[in-house]
Amino acid sequence: MKATGRGVYYEGSGSFIVRAAPQVPPGAGEVRIDVAYCGICGTDIHIAHGGMDHRVRVPQVIGHEMSGRIAEIGPDVDGANVGDRVVVRPLDARGETAADKGFSHISRNLKFLGIDTPGAFQTSWTVPAFTIHQLPDAVDLRLAALTEPLAVACHDVRRAEVTADDTVVVIGGGPIGLLIALVAREEGARVMLSEINPERLGLARELGFETIDPDSEVGSVALSTLGAAGGADVVFEVSGSAAGAMAMTELASIRGRIVVVAIYPEPQPVRLFDVFWKELQLRGARVYEPEDFERAIELLAAEVLPLERLISAVEPLERLPDVLAEMAAGASGIKTLVDCTS
Amino acid sequence: MKATGRGVYYEGSGSFIVRAAPQVPPGAGEVRIDVAYCGICGTDIHIAHGGMDHRVRVPQVIGHEMSGRIAEIGPDVDGANVGDRVVVRPLDARGETAADKGFSHISRNLKFLGIDTPGAFQTSWTVPAFTIHQLPDAVDLRLAALTEPLAVACHDVRRAEVTADDTVVVIGGGPIGLLIALVAREEGARVMLSEINPERLGLARELGFETIDPDSEVGSVALSTLGAAGGADVVFEVSGSAAGAMAMTELASIRGRIVVVAIYPEPQPVRLFDVFWKELQLRGARVYEPEDFERAIELLAAEVLPLERLISAVEPLERLPDVLAEMAAGASGIKTLVDCTS
Repeated sequence: MKATGRGVYYEGSGSFIVRAAPQVPPGAGEVRIDVAYCGICGTDIHIAHGGMDHRVRVPQVIGHEMSGRIAEIGPDVDGANVGDRVVVRPLDARGETAADKGFSHISRNLKFLGIDTPGAFQTSWTVPAFTIHQLPDAVDLRLAALTEPLAVACHDVRRAEVTADDTVVVIGGGPIGLLIALVAREEGARVMLSEINPERLGLARELGFETIDPDSEVGSVALSTLGAAGGADVVFEVSGSAAGAMAMTELASIRGRIVVVAIYPEPQPVRLFDVFWKELQLRGARVYEPEDFERAIELLAAEVLPLERLISAVEPLERLPDVLAEMAAGASGIKTLVDCTS
Repeated sequence: MKATGRGVYYEGSGSFIVRAAPQVPPGAGEVRIDVAYCGICGTDIHIAHGGMDHRVRVPQVIGHEMSGRIAEIGPDVDGANVGDRVVVRPLDARGETAADKGFSHISRNLKFLGIDTPGAFQTSWTVPAFTIHQLPDAVDLRLAALTEPLAVACHDVRRAEVTADDTVVVIGGGPIGLLIALVAREEGARVMLSEINPERLGLARELGFETIDPDSEVGSVALSTLGAAGGADVVFEVSGSAAGAMAMTELASIRGRIVVVAIYPEPQPVRLFDVFWKELQLRGARVYEPEDFERAIELLAAEVLPLERLISAVEPLERLPDVLAEMAAGASGIKTLVDCTS
């Protein structure tokens, strides 16, 4: 065990440096993890744009889509052993109050590990033991770094109450949109994916989804056909686009369920008439609850999803600042992982 | 029984005339009703503005918030007797298809009696027998003319799943807003009513509701206090205002239920961020199902709601064109009934 590791520190204003990072000894109720892999999330790119400088206290290591092995265990921790392969559910809801109505995962004083507290883009990460989920032996640690975004998708699909009888439209084919599509299909639903980016459309098709480019003539015919058949039972708005916010209510059937997954920073025009007329149900969905992590791990262990196809690149930790700059500049790819053992 | 009655006919472009109206003999599965009272709905005023000329085929009697007595019964009608005191649930869903998913009341080919087919502002009204709900003997026919809007409120409250533990905010204190507030209070909820019209605020206070004028300093303090306490479990948006569409998500608690009752003809800015962040649930609610009519009649019969207070005036049928013109010009009052026996 190295006495000192490496970490990538956000320094504010979109700037990162790679430097020595202390191994933080685990306190009571904590564990220290040797990080294996950590994926780059849209939020990390948003931070790299300086878009969350009001929230991230610098200098700080960010990153939260990780897998690793327990390296050290603090006092008062049960059910964990050195060497355990784990992922972290990066939510600290210890500030929860009664006004949160029992919804810890979206409680008002929630701390998100890797945004509000130090994250996983480092060789060693010390976290509260209650954030840990154990991985089965068979699960590859590289794929396991997808557990967190997969748990987002599991939460979204659960919020939508997707069944095998449903026709589902996912608006937006980035990592979360594709994962939602995969999880919804695993529930037996017919899944269509709407996207305008040709690369993402191509991947969605390769993954076997019916795709719709709403800007194309073929896409507009497909949407008309769907509408004539009564519309989609479930719509996931994952694009964060103005067009998506308008389309989500149009595409939905009578009493259709619409799950708002994307982050719209500004008030957005929505066809409230459709909500009224078709008695639609819009539901927000944010992060995950413990059962969503368990479901994600179950899906990983069952090897039923083509998750390997979503990994565009695996980069060494030292390269992270450059990779973030490339992604901020619009580099293609779905999910880039960072190898934190290097 | 008069061989010919009277009716108020809409002639298009906001114009009405009062003239002789035929008594239509009931066909198979139909009944003819001597109309007692018929309330004036916001939709009727909208028609009187010419706002539904694309939908109403003229000349046509409108009106749908009625009470009356069965006068004549066509072939193949069970469970109805001449003299029965009844109200009509003015929905004809015989055009329902599988794409409507069993939600007859909002089916795509739904016909609304009094808009898409002749209505009740006449002395005699012939309707399909399946639209009838029987009234208990004790129910006053004047109050019974409120059954239809009360059924709207019962549907809205049922859609919101209001319980005795809930804090409820109703945005908009017109007839439907007040009825929702009354029905929600009957479920045991704490009900606050937000409104800017001083007359409506006054009535809401007299009915015992906590009121909020969001434009006043006192109102803004009340809203801050509500927010600090975690927000409202349930919000009804009944105002149809831009401010209401923005406030509805702000006022709601974590996982709060928002029911969109108002008709927004145009896409409206909505804080989708709140929907995401607090995992809100927006639900559209339109008209009613049979059980909502039964619940409304049950509440009428139990005499637990101060419905008399909502009746601003009772006008003779001959006066309806003038009354509609006065209301379109902004006359005050909550609910005006038309006496169709006169």
